[in-house]
Amino acid sequence: MRTIDVRTDRRTEFVEITADVRRVVREAGLTDGAVAVYCPHTTAAVTIQENADPDVVHDLLLWLNHHIPKNVAGFRHAEGNSDAHIKSSLVGPSVLVPVAGGDLVLGTWQGVYFCEFDGPRSREVKVQTIGNNS
Amino acid sequence: MRTIDVRTDRRTEFVEITADVRRVVREAGLTDGAVAVYCPHTTAAVTIQENADPDVVHDLLLWLNHHIPKNVAGFRHAEGNSDAHIKSSLVGPSVLVPVAGGDLVLGTWQGVYFCEFDGPRSREVKVQTIGNNS
Amino acid sequence: MRTIDVRTDRRTEFVEITADVRRVVREAGLTDGAVAVYCPHTTAAVTIQENADPDVVHDLLLWLNHHIPKNVAGFRHAEGNSDAHIKSSLVGPSVLVPVAGGDLVLGTWQGVYFCEFDGPRSREVKVQTIGNNS
Repeated sequence: MRTIDVRTDRRTEFVEITADVRRVVREAGLTDGAVAVYCPHTTAAVTIQENADPDVVHDLLLWLNHHIPKNVAGFRHAEGNSDAHIKSSLVGPSVLVPVAGGDLVLGTWQGVYFCEFDGPRSREVKVQTIGNNS
Repeated sequence: MRTIDVRTDRRTEFVEITADVRRVVREAGLTDGAVAVYCPHTTAAVTIQENADPDVVHDLLLWLNHHIPKNVAGFRHAEGNSDAHIKSSLVGPSVLVPVAGGDLVLGTWQGVYFCEFDGPRSREVKVQTIGNNS
Repeated sequence: MRTIDVRTDRRTEFVEITADVRRVVREAGLTDGAVAVYCPHTTAAVTIQENADPDVVHDLLLWLNHHIPKNVAGFRHAEGNSDAHIKSSLVGPSVLVPVAGGDLVLGTWQGVYFCEFDGPRSREVKVQTIGNNS
């Protein structure tokens, strides 16, 4: 298992980590199987989204921030970041990407994104290769 | 890894692919492990839902289409399908189903669904078996 | 594959199952790989969340129950629990947690939760270890 370090600059932000994940797969020599990209934080997440037009992740963040605001009547968590925890569980803590022919099986427009919901912070992403023929 | 072809007929629609996934597992001869069902598109997704009453996926689509409309003030993505990208990240790009005794470990009412959010289109789903005893 | 039994006491409730998942990994003798925690029910889910302050899952449930109410104009499913099905697909049917050094790779504040959305019921969670060196 390998760790990718991610530095975020804003409270909510998507950071593409496709190249880092691809490098882990190649260094592990995995030819066939899958790779788990796992977020060990409860106020962040990992997703797959379009990486051609940055407006796509802009619009995704706009929707999330509008529908899951920071302050909601009834929220109890004293840290005041319940919105980040909710976004984390809805987007999800991990993605599993198939690996074939020694590379990630991503669609033409797909990238792997670290999703910051309570930054700026120094974060980690855990990348575990799972091989069929290792 | 195998590819399942899916043809969708409407803009938003759930297509059950359980039989296709089961066939891939059997043809691979996988007896114990898991199977990753992965969507290589950023305006579609994969989920597990009830396949006994089609009203369940109707109601799920009704909620998604109401709360994530096509046009939202502030959306920038010029293709005009940001709603489909948002639904894709919330439902998620993949599911992982355990395999035991040579078959999918699904609950009684569970089916695997391809979720179209920007159709009609010709789509693909990638199915990768992950074996413990290969 | 192993089965964890979960008994829920309320209609919507999060039950932490981290210790059960950890025990399965240790009993399986898995040292390196991942563990899939899978919910075979379509009105429940599995997620990773903070387990230090119980107010976090309180706030997550508050948001879900407010935004996905039991009765919505247009819902057709006769059982009247469409909200539970919707929550199930948004939170997701499974999580995949990396395993390294014989233990779960969880962040400091992370726990694995069974998410009940249509209880109280007797439920099951399927836990499948996926090894790299088995």
